[in-house]
Amino acid sequence: MTLDFKPGGAGLRTRIFQIIFESDTPLAKGFDIALIGVILTSVLVVMLESIQSLRADYGDLFYWLEWGFTLAFTIELAVRLYCLDKPLRYLRSFYGVVDVIAILPTWLVLIVPGAQSLVVVRLLRVLRIFRVLRLMQFVGEGRLLLGALKRSVHQIFLFLFTVFMLVTIFAALVYLIEPAEAGFTSIPTAIYWAIVTLTTVGYGDIVPVTPIGQAISVVVMLIGYSIIAVPTGVFSAEVIRSIRADRYSDEACPGCGHDRHEKRAKYCLRCGTWLDEDTPDPRNDDAPSTDEA
Amino acid sequence: MTLDFKPGGAGLRTRIFQIIFESDTPLAKGFDIALIGVILTSVLVVMLESIQSLRADYGDLFYWLEWGFTLAFTIELAVRLYCLDKPLRYLRSFYGVVDVIAILPTWLVLIVPGAQSLVVVRLLRVLRIFRVLRLMQFVGEGRLLLGALKRSVHQIFLFLFTVFMLVTIFAALVYLIEPAEAGFTSIPTAIYWAIVTLTTVGYGDIVPVTPIGQAISVVVMLIGYSIIAVPTGVFSAEVIRSIRADRYSDEACPGCGHDRHEKRAKYCLRCGTWLDEDTPDPRNDDAPSTDEA
Amino acid sequence: MTLDFKPGGAGLRTRIFQIIFESDTPLAKGFDIALIGVILTSVLVVMLESIQSLRADYGDLFYWLEWGFTLAFTIELAVRLYCLDKPLRYLRSFYGVVDVIAILPTWLVLIVPGAQSLVVVRLLRVLRIFRVLRLMQFVGEGRLLLGALKRSVHQIFLFLFTVFMLVTIFAALVYLIEPAEAGFTSIPTAIYWAIVTLTTVGYGDIVPVTPIGQAISVVVMLIGYSIIAVPTGVFSAEVIRSIRADRYSDEACPGCGHDRHEKRAKYCLRCGTWLDEDTPDPRNDDAPSTDEA
Amino acid sequence: MTLDFKPGGAGLRTRIFQIIFESDTPLAKGFDIALIGVILTSVLVVMLESIQSLRADYGDLFYWLEWGFTLAFTIELAVRLYCLDKPLRYLRSFYGVVDVIAILPTWLVLIVPGAQSLVVVRLLRVLRIFRVLRLMQFVGEGRLLLGALKRSVHQIFLFLFTVFMLVTIFAALVYLIEPAEAGFTSIPTAIYWAIVTLTTVGYGDIVPVTPIGQAISVVVMLIGYSIIAVPTGVFSAEVIRSIRADRYSDEACPGCGHDRHEKRAKYCLRCGTWLDEDTPDPRNDDAPSTDEA
Repeated sequence: MTLDFKPGGAGLRTRIFQIIFESDTPLAKGFDIALIGVILTSVLVVMLESIQSLRADYGDLFYWLEWGFTLAFTIELAVRLYCLDKPLRYLRSFYGVVDVIAILPTWLVLIVPGAQSLVVVRLLRVLRIFRVLRLMQFVGEGRLLLGALKRSVHQIFLFLFTVFMLVTIFAALVYLIEPAEAGFTSIPTAIYWAIVTLTTVGYGDIVPVTPIGQAISVVVMLIGYSIIAVPTGVFSAEVIRSIRADRYSDEACPGCGHDRHEKRAKYCLRCGTWLDEDTPDPRNDDAPSTDEA
Repeated sequence: MTLDFKPGGAGLRTRIFQIIFESDTPLAKGFDIALIGVILTSVLVVMLESIQSLRADYGDLFYWLEWGFTLAFTIELAVRLYCLDKPLRYLRSFYGVVDVIAILPTWLVLIVPGAQSLVVVRLLRVLRIFRVLRLMQFVGEGRLLLGALKRSVHQIFLFLFTVFMLVTIFAALVYLIEPAEAGFTSIPTAIYWAIVTLTTVGYGDIVPVTPIGQAISVVVMLIGYSIIAVPTGVFSAEVIRSIRADRYSDEACPGCGHDRHEKRAKYCLRCGTWLDEDTPDPRNDDAPSTDEA
Repeated sequence: MTLDFKPGGAGLRTRIFQIIFESDTPLAKGFDIALIGVILTSVLVVMLESIQSLRADYGDLFYWLEWGFTLAFTIELAVRLYCLDKPLRYLRSFYGVVDVIAILPTWLVLIVPGAQSLVVVRLLRVLRIFRVLRLMQFVGEGRLLLGALKRSVHQIFLFLFTVFMLVTIFAALVYLIEPAEAGFTSIPTAIYWAIVTLTTVGYGDIVPVTPIGQAISVVVMLIGYSIIAVPTGVFSAEVIRSIRADRYSDEACPGCGHDRHEKRAKYCLRCGTWLDEDTPDPRNDDAPSTDEA
Repeated sequence: MTLDFKPGGAGLRTRIFQIIFESDTPLAKGFDIALIGVILTSVLVVMLESIQSLRADYGDLFYWLEWGFTLAFTIELAVRLYCLDKPLRYLRSFYGVVDVIAILPTWLVLIVPGAQSLVVVRLLRVLRIFRVLRLMQFVGEGRLLLGALKRSVHQIFLFLFTVFMLVTIFAALVYLIEPAEAGFTSIPTAIYWAIVTLTTVGYGDIVPVTPIGQAISVVVMLIGYSIIAVPTGVFSAEVIRSIRADRYSDEACPGCGHDRHEKRAKYCLRCGTWLDEDTPDPRNDDAPSTDEA
């Protein structure tokens, strides 16, 4: 997380800041893990509450637990804002928005009944887990994946755009052909059916009943079955490119211009020139001359 | 888009041509974007009209809107044809055919009732969007994807051919084994079931009920689950090949004619000739002879 | 197709042989294409006959057409055998077996009623199409795909073996937990359900109804959704390897031992040595010395 | 399998050990294959017994067969333990645990009725097949696959974690929107529905009925259809990396310590030292000095 909101002083605020915003001391790490535990528990409570039989028996318990969690999270947010120099800026950041959304539904329920289930967006707060993980092995890999995803995004957008156009045209065709009794009551419903079919989900709540409708749906299925290759191929290629780019440097050798060395290389693979221009070549000290490295 | 139909003069026709056929001036770009907006709105109207409850309330509105869009598109097509020197040739081009198809269904409805829903093919006109996008980043990537698709087409055709043969044989087997009550009323229906199964769509409208029928359908499922690897593998390999090909230049070496160098190459890999003809070869100036490049 | 059965002489038998077994003369090619047309038509007839309403109207026509095709194919097989020197050997070959299977069901129907639908295996005869295609571009690509498939077979077998073991254990678990009314009447049925789930087909004819059963099926789904990566990954890697192997030779340069040249390379990319040891180096004739190739 | 439990002596115990624990003599191999046959048969019996109609007719036979297999496996386990020096250590090993689990359910059934179906975990004993296969071609490939899987595990875990978070949030949304009659009775049930949808299984036992619910499920489907690319891409990249790594040797150069040469390399790529220490460097004999190896 960016440290732009960091308090300047070294008093209580700074100490709180280090505990709840950073994660490099044992105390801060412990706070993060405890927080994630509380978040997961509060999400679990919302889930359990949604089960009819449990609500009947433990409705009151759930009610008070929910308010307990909401108060705790509200206080936590207040403390967070207190120890920052630019609290408003934090509220506009990703984590700030998530923090507000996580407590909003319960407070909202005082006005709008039923909004309570939205409390599961609280789960997004678990994204904080990545702050803990950052210190570990995961993040490099996550960044590699995310980089590959980002570079695939344009192509996958193009792909989805084409898919959606195909889907709409097929849906209109099937809507014309199939009787309304089969479930194709409108074009939007037919689009829903076409996406259910193309993505190979196939609920079976709406199915074509006429031979021509079945023939068209067979075409949609085969398209869906084949073009899954497109996002997969694009993303695979990007991951492979990322892995490779990770190993190789793009800096050119000052001697011969060869510019595809492994990052760990110290001498040019082609002409033996010393690559690290900031430090002197150890060969100039050592006797064993290996000109042709 | 090809400019074969371009008018020769420089009067009104030429100005209209520049606005509605090209997209490199602000006015032309604005026209394209407005056009796409109108197309999408007209498609939306067709979709909304297909919803029973909305049709009951706003049927008349939809009716007049639809005629309004059709008249607008008809006039637009007339203007397009007017400002071209070879209007017939445009009508035979891809965009020309799409333009005609986009207005045909509404006019047809005067003769054949019910054809109206086909108006969604109007969506194809949105392909014009690629003309706007061409000026942006997308196209290079789209072309890379399309190139990979084209080179995969033969292999994916072979694959689909084999799949269809397998599907027919399995369908005939299951048709023999399963009772008609389970839904396997004919071999074409059984083929429909087999494709629903092989593509892992699995509607569940027709399912095998005998143990042998279930055993055969398990085989079809496992085949479908495994061979999805074929189009995916082929396409992935092609994308990777495309990306790599992107790294190579097609310019031939002036010395030996070798024409597959990495773009960053400065000397021919085959005969050592200096490749960049616009600047002098540094070897001729610098003293340190780097014969071993 | 292997030409082991080829007749030695040059009379009528040889001419017939050239027409029906080979495909390099226009007549032979025409025969092949006509044959494939007839085969596809006969398969179509079987399909149409299976449709109740068509059978009611055209039953007799279908009956006589079917016997017509069977007689034609029987005569064709007789002619094939006649013009071969080793007819028995042909009957034991792949195409021979297919030819016999293609006519057997209709003859069998004189004894066993109902076997007729098996006539669709006649579709296998269409494999002869590959003989025509061989002369075209397809085959190189088909062989590349087949090669990649063959090299993936061991790994995909291992994969399917593991999958089947997992599936059986999960099926037994769900069989224990779910009531028989939900459709889990026996372990084999539960295995059928598990494969329907793992391959993401999901008919919905048998679904878990208890929370624990649903939890287990969620695990099966996630496994199925993730491990599809295994055959896809293995096959993609093999295709990429095939494409690369296709372009590079493994023969080492006699000069420097470098052994990764493109097949089209004439000189070693590293030391300029002439690679084709059977013919003399043209450089020894030509004046322009390109020592540094 | 590790040979840590191996008996020291050379008497009967050692001979039994060689037969039932190793697989390099014909007798030991035969024992392994026979054992696998018996295991598969016993699993088959459990499966058949679960079929109502067969149990009615052959219930007694199945009962006695089951006890026969259990006794046989119990005796086999006893013999295994007898011929080992550290039997307890074996019981804690993977195969030891599996051996115990394989006989436990039948003995348990004396106390807890119904546990019998768990006997299929006996199938896990078939993993012993890998001991036989180890001597064959499979293992190298299996290890390659397993290595690729292991290196993908972190990334696939990250992926599943993200998926599960998305799924929970979408499930809560749909739970709020859809009426309970559609089947969305609680958030856990909605999560079950979301995973059924995201993995493209699509049973159809619970489907959205409101337009907004259908719109959300379309989003879930498209996400599921697209992100399948992630595990596939990651695993493909790992397999390709494994295959490539297979081409490299890990032995260090005696000259400079560089330890990533292609296996076919004869000279170090970094310092030109002769790598094969067992044979003399041909450069020392041959006149044509090839300094540039």
